[in-house]
Amino acid sequence: MTLTLNYIEEAAERIAPYIQRTPLLRMNNLDPFLGCEIYLKMESMQKTNAFKIRGAMNKILQLPESDLEKGIITTSSGNHGRAVAFAAKQLGIHATVVVPESGSKFKADAIEALGAELLRCDVRERFEVTEALAEKYDYTYIPPFDDYGVMAGQGTVGLEITSQNEALDHVIMPASGGGLLASSSTAIKLTAPDMKVYGAEPANLPRYTESLAKGEVTAVTRKETVADALVTSQPGTRNFPIVKEYVDGMMTVSEEFILKGMKLLMMEAKIVTEPSSAITAGALLEGSLDVSPEDKVCLVISGGNVGLDFMEKLKYIHY
Amino acid sequence: MTLTLNYIEEAAERIAPYIQRTPLLRMNNLDPFLGCEIYLKMESMQKTNAFKIRGAMNKILQLPESDLEKGIITTSSGNHGRAVAFAAKQLGIHATVVVPESGSKFKADAIEALGAELLRCDVRERFEVTEALAEKYDYTYIPPFDDYGVMAGQGTVGLEITSQNEALDHVIMPASGGGLLASSSTAIKLTAPDMKVYGAEPANLPRYTESLAKGEVTAVTRKETVADALVTSQPGTRNFPIVKEYVDGMMTVSEEFILKGMKLLMMEAKIVTEPSSAITAGALLEGSLDVSPEDKVCLVISGGNVGLDFMEKLKYIHY
Repeated sequence: MTLTLNYIEEAAERIAPYIQRTPLLRMNNLDPFLGCEIYLKMESMQKTNAFKIRGAMNKILQLPESDLEKGIITTSSGNHGRAVAFAAKQLGIHATVVVPESGSKFKADAIEALGAELLRCDVRERFEVTEALAEKYDYTYIPPFDDYGVMAGQGTVGLEITSQNEALDHVIMPASGGGLLASSSTAIKLTAPDMKVYGAEPANLPRYTESLAKGEVTAVTRKETVADALVTSQPGTRNFPIVKEYVDGMMTVSEEFILKGMKLLMMEAKIVTEPSSAITAGALLEGSLDVSPEDKVCLVISGGNVGLDFMEKLKYIHY
Repeated sequence: MTLTLNYIEEAAERIAPYIQRTPLLRMNNLDPFLGCEIYLKMESMQKTNAFKIRGAMNKILQLPESDLEKGIITTSSGNHGRAVAFAAKQLGIHATVVVPESGSKFKADAIEALGAELLRCDVRERFEVTEALAEKYDYTYIPPFDDYGVMAGQGTVGLEITSQNEALDHVIMPASGGGLLASSSTAIKLTAPDMKVYGAEPANLPRYTESLAKGEVTAVTRKETVADALVTSQPGTRNFPIVKEYVDGMMTVSEEFILKGMKLLMMEAKIVTEPSSAITAGALLEGSLDVSPEDKVCLVISGGNVGLDFMEKLKYIHY
């Protein structure tokens, strides 16, 4: 099994009734700040306000009826958990979501509000806790990344981008385990081969930058980052070889520039993004890509789930 | 002279090189909260982040060269001032902007940053101060509303809406002096006669509601409102008869529901709006319009100029 364009196209058809085709917005007001023609792929306006619903829904819709009846389980720093909870609610099945205690309270609350069972645990134990529960109750595990079903759904972001504008020069998307990056770069390279694709990850957790340098999946030391959806310590084993083949480069972004990106998007584009999405604007602000004014650059705004409390952190940030 | 569809269409052509054609976004995530199919006309993504540039630019582009050389002046609670300053900068001419001391500091700072001369005065004296300066320096006055040149430019918002989606049932837009409402209702009714048009104004300053009830332009008692762009105490004399003819109804919105609307748009649609634009969502939340789930309702998000300080006010607001 591998990830094919055909599998992503099938996923697009499968999930279409359950998701939004999100707009790709030309955002001229950002051009003077970022030095090129800016386009934003607005997954923050997706159902559950993040792209994760695409992958979760594609995976869940392929499960046999008997598994759906028993219930599903996942672990997630927030957006994937919310997506699984939302999908379960839409389909009328039971969902359990294990979240790291260190994650966003805003996101955990949203998961509970959707009617899912919520369990908090230490971030290092979350996979063990999830596995134990899955075994005990015969739940089907819906992985947040590194699964071809999930990846095919997430790749529909890339598929939409090239169908909405085939003339883009560069696409920058956030990377954690690499599900969005691997799958959407596959869709982009196989439908618009000239488009360049980049991943942006926190400088505090450069798991792809280091793994690509070493040529193999490498775990980095766990450090804090404001990008609470990008906390995975190593690339997914299924994602890594795809990223290696299709992605044109990785960018590491400092904490300061993630916040600058977020404030820029809020004040000039008038959109609310989570720091894990604003990292794409932060990468450009930090000078990670050589661009000229006529370059068409698409930033994937992967999600907008952030609380008002967090926005106060932006008060003294200048871009 | 009156406001014709032809005059608005000419304005659209005249200002096209200087403004954005802003997106009309289908925003499904708001449907469950507002009880109908929601569309947003995103003038918050306009140049200067408000629709005002359309009117100011159309007015200024019609001035003779000799007037442009002497300079222009205006008075405005913020967005029109910023629009005039932006237009002056683009055309390389001098602009003076008189702002009420009670207005948004965020907006005043943005005007100064564009290189315009800024003057603060008491809100009740702003027209006298402006007139005296215009006479002294031979500046041309660019009125914020109640001027056919300005109105024709602002009417291009309505023109774009019907060209972007002719199947909308209702359009709700904010009203102060009524420039946007009069001009855009003209464009809408003359291109899509079945579309209903409504104006939303603060319950604290119900100048249109009261004037329409009395059948003549009536000034209301000046009161405070969080909607800092909607502070005019009476309808414009040119706007009033047009609103009377074309607008299907006015809605008054309480301060509480203006803030609820703003928080709803921020948390569910992930967009930053100023309170004066969020009033449209507030009107629906407050139950001012009978809607069914299949009704297509467009909210005109007229601007997004609001500082982070203001957003703190939303912390304890629930929608």
